[in-house]
Amino acid sequence: MKKINIALVGAGVVGSSLIWQLHEKHKRIIDEFNVDIRIVKVLVRNKEIKREVPQQSILFSNNDNAGLFADSLVTDIDEIVSDDIDLVVEVAGGIDDAYKIISSALNNSKSVVTANKALLALKGNELYEIARKKGVDLLFEAAVGGGVPIIRPIRESLAVEHINSVRGILNGTTNYMLTQMTRESKRYDQALLQAQELGFAEADPTADVEGYDAAAKIAIISLLATGANASAQDVQCKGISGIRLEDIESAHNLGYVIKLIALVQERDERSVFLRVEPTFVPLDHPFSTVHDSFNAVFVEGEKLGEVMFYGRGAGGDPTASAVLGDTIDAAINISYERKGAAVGFAFDKTIADPREWISKFYVSAEVVDEPGVLAQIAQVLAKHKVSVESMNQVGQGDKAKLVFITHECADGYICDVVQDLTTLSCVDAVTAVYPIMQ
Amino acid sequence: MKKINIALVGAGVVGSSLIWQLHEKHKRIIDEFNVDIRIVKVLVRNKEIKREVPQQSILFSNNDNAGLFADSLVTDIDEIVSDDIDLVVEVAGGIDDAYKIISSALNNSKSVVTANKALLALKGNELYEIARKKGVDLLFEAAVGGGVPIIRPIRESLAVEHINSVRGILNGTTNYMLTQMTRESKRYDQALLQAQELGFAEADPTADVEGYDAAAKIAIISLLATGANASAQDVQCKGISGIRLEDIESAHNLGYVIKLIALVQERDERSVFLRVEPTFVPLDHPFSTVHDSFNAVFVEGEKLGEVMFYGRGAGGDPTASAVLGDTIDAAINISYERKGAAVGFAFDKTIADPREWISKFYVSAEVVDEPGVLAQIAQVLAKHKVSVESMNQVGQGDKAKLVFITHECADGYICDVVQDLTTLSCVDAVTAVYPIMQ
Repeated sequence: MKKINIALVGAGVVGSSLIWQLHEKHKRIIDEFNVDIRIVKVLVRNKEIKREVPQQSILFSNNDNAGLFADSLVTDIDEIVSDDIDLVVEVAGGIDDAYKIISSALNNSKSVVTANKALLALKGNELYEIARKKGVDLLFEAAVGGGVPIIRPIRESLAVEHINSVRGILNGTTNYMLTQMTRESKRYDQALLQAQELGFAEADPTADVEGYDAAAKIAIISLLATGANASAQDVQCKGISGIRLEDIESAHNLGYVIKLIALVQERDERSVFLRVEPTFVPLDHPFSTVHDSFNAVFVEGEKLGEVMFYGRGAGGDPTASAVLGDTIDAAINISYERKGAAVGFAFDKTIADPREWISKFYVSAEVVDEPGVLAQIAQVLAKHKVSVESMNQVGQGDKAKLVFITHECADGYICDVVQDLTTLSCVDAVTAVYPIMQ
Repeated sequence: MKKINIALVGAGVVGSSLIWQLHEKHKRIIDEFNVDIRIVKVLVRNKEIKREVPQQSILFSNNDNAGLFADSLVTDIDEIVSDDIDLVVEVAGGIDDAYKIISSALNNSKSVVTANKALLALKGNELYEIARKKGVDLLFEAAVGGGVPIIRPIRESLAVEHINSVRGILNGTTNYMLTQMTRESKRYDQALLQAQELGFAEADPTADVEGYDAAAKIAIISLLATGANASAQDVQCKGISGIRLEDIESAHNLGYVIKLIALVQERDERSVFLRVEPTFVPLDHPFSTVHDSFNAVFVEGEKLGEVMFYGRGAGGDPTASAVLGDTIDAAINISYERKGAAVGFAFDKTIADPREWISKFYVSAEVVDEPGVLAQIAQVLAKHKVSVESMNQVGQGDKAKLVFITHECADGYICDVVQDLTTLSCVDAVTAVYPIMQ
């Protein structure tokens, strides 16, 4: 049996967990899959750090006797892509070094498994294209959704399906915070503080709360599901920092819960919508029960209909499990000299104008409590051809608030409506605009 | 490129849809997967029936010119497993002929794809064992959950995971009926009638409403997920025909919804619990939003945590998509002379005594409205060491009802409690017992 020689980039939480899992399952993987995986090199910054991994294992050996973990350590990134390596597994993160290693590996016809979300969201198309040309694997289950199987089912669905849209709750931190705000009536800043105390949110929470993390993930998904020529910056992105408790309560009273939804949706054969934004989700939709740091993805296929995947979004062990699954797949393909799993998209789809995206919307505004307000607002809506499903005035006097839900209309029309509303003397402020999921 | 010659058993709704999909995607499958799939034989009962399939296609040909569907038809089951066949795809259903064809194919080292739930629930172990010995594929995604990817994720998880339990809403008919009973306050018989009128339930609905269909599916899942030596009869099975509207209302008032839950759960290294029964599901659990004919499966793995899969349970196109996915997988394995995907269980696990299964339970009883009733009932509970989380008397006089929720206890103790309660003079009847999902 041919040995599959791996170069592992990174031996932190995920890397160490992966080494343990490979160590424990080495024999079982041989029995089940007929592949003998060895870790020939481990790239680290500092060889001296004590790491919680098996120090001695057949994994690190070239024969039937155990080898030493210490002997596999290298610190020079140029040493990673060498002739004896079959497969590069990158779990270190970062952009520049990771890009250098991965593109060099792919260009040298070596398969790559990576958990590097940031890199894929930036340069996914380019790397994917190299993998496709060279006929090798570029697998990245762990880059999106940690332990939730998302990438693989999409990849497999694609074999037989045309995918119309993928929607997801892709960021565990914001979902935890929204759960706290919804269940415990915590304000945004309280929820953030708690998430930081529990280690769910970082000291600088920008990437999570402003939706950039979810944007990177949906860009990666769009690459695979639709072949769109997209990176994270192409995503129309709005975070959760503007969500007020009263929006959550208002949503609840109408039968909705607010979730940060990422979506890629085909506009036509040539373009896709890419969005991340807080969204009203109906209480009887499965997304409404995705609590805390769980993630979920809805894939809508032409024949398959709607399929959802759900699971815990992060953590060293689940992420390492996802990396291990990819590693075994890539090893099998190498072992059987089978072409990699890269799907043959042309990456010729463009990003559609977000203003053309169609949805129902919830809008709330602070208004002056006087006769004729409704008429003025109705006129603005009529001017932009937005028809209204329901409109309610809540409160009186200084606290007067107008809430309306539109029928389906283009996002751009709603933007125009909001702009025009703010010019009305009877409107103090437009306080909230949310799309409503069907 | 080697042609992969398929013998297709059955050309009904699923078979026809499969032929269309293969016809339309023939070139794409070659481009993506490097396998050239041909349908050499199609087993039908009657050649004369007009079928809605492409009458002429490269699928039915041995070369680059289109062949005729009519020329592929055979009616003799002994003709199916011949030397020129690489893969048997069975979508006809039934037991005897299907068993004969599939076991003969496997014994002749030919891979098999099947959608035959009944056969697998009866003889899955035996067939699986042959496939394993011969190193060929026995794939059956479509046998469980139609278009919901259930079998494949379990199979793939297994590569890296130990699975502790699988719970599922596996029967679309009963889930549709329960949705009607919950949302529209329909009685069981009204919901059944409506399901029959809409074609969701059959004239004889026994297999669905008594849980036998779900039992067959969970038996198949248990085979794959735990290696239990189980068939459908081993499942502790209770259907939905005894569910009263007041149970549904009572559940709702306590924050639950009633779902027919199938489960396989590891008791220890040597045995598993296998159950199908109406269960109280918390309203904030994802299962509570699985409505109508949708299916869902929760897999609990050691490292991966909880993962859920959700989608539409049935229908010709989704089922055919699932069969197509399996067919491509098997064709790839044949093409690369790769060992089949059969997982190497020893099938040595037994079925645990259902009385030992642990859960919280909901119990309701009609009682005589007189002093001392609570004390008598509490005594029965104490005798069987069942501790109670809450106990409430609802209504007065003739309508007096006692409802209690237990802490976690063994199923057998609850059975004993119920039996003892019915012997008390103050208890008219125990009207409902439901396990409560956590």
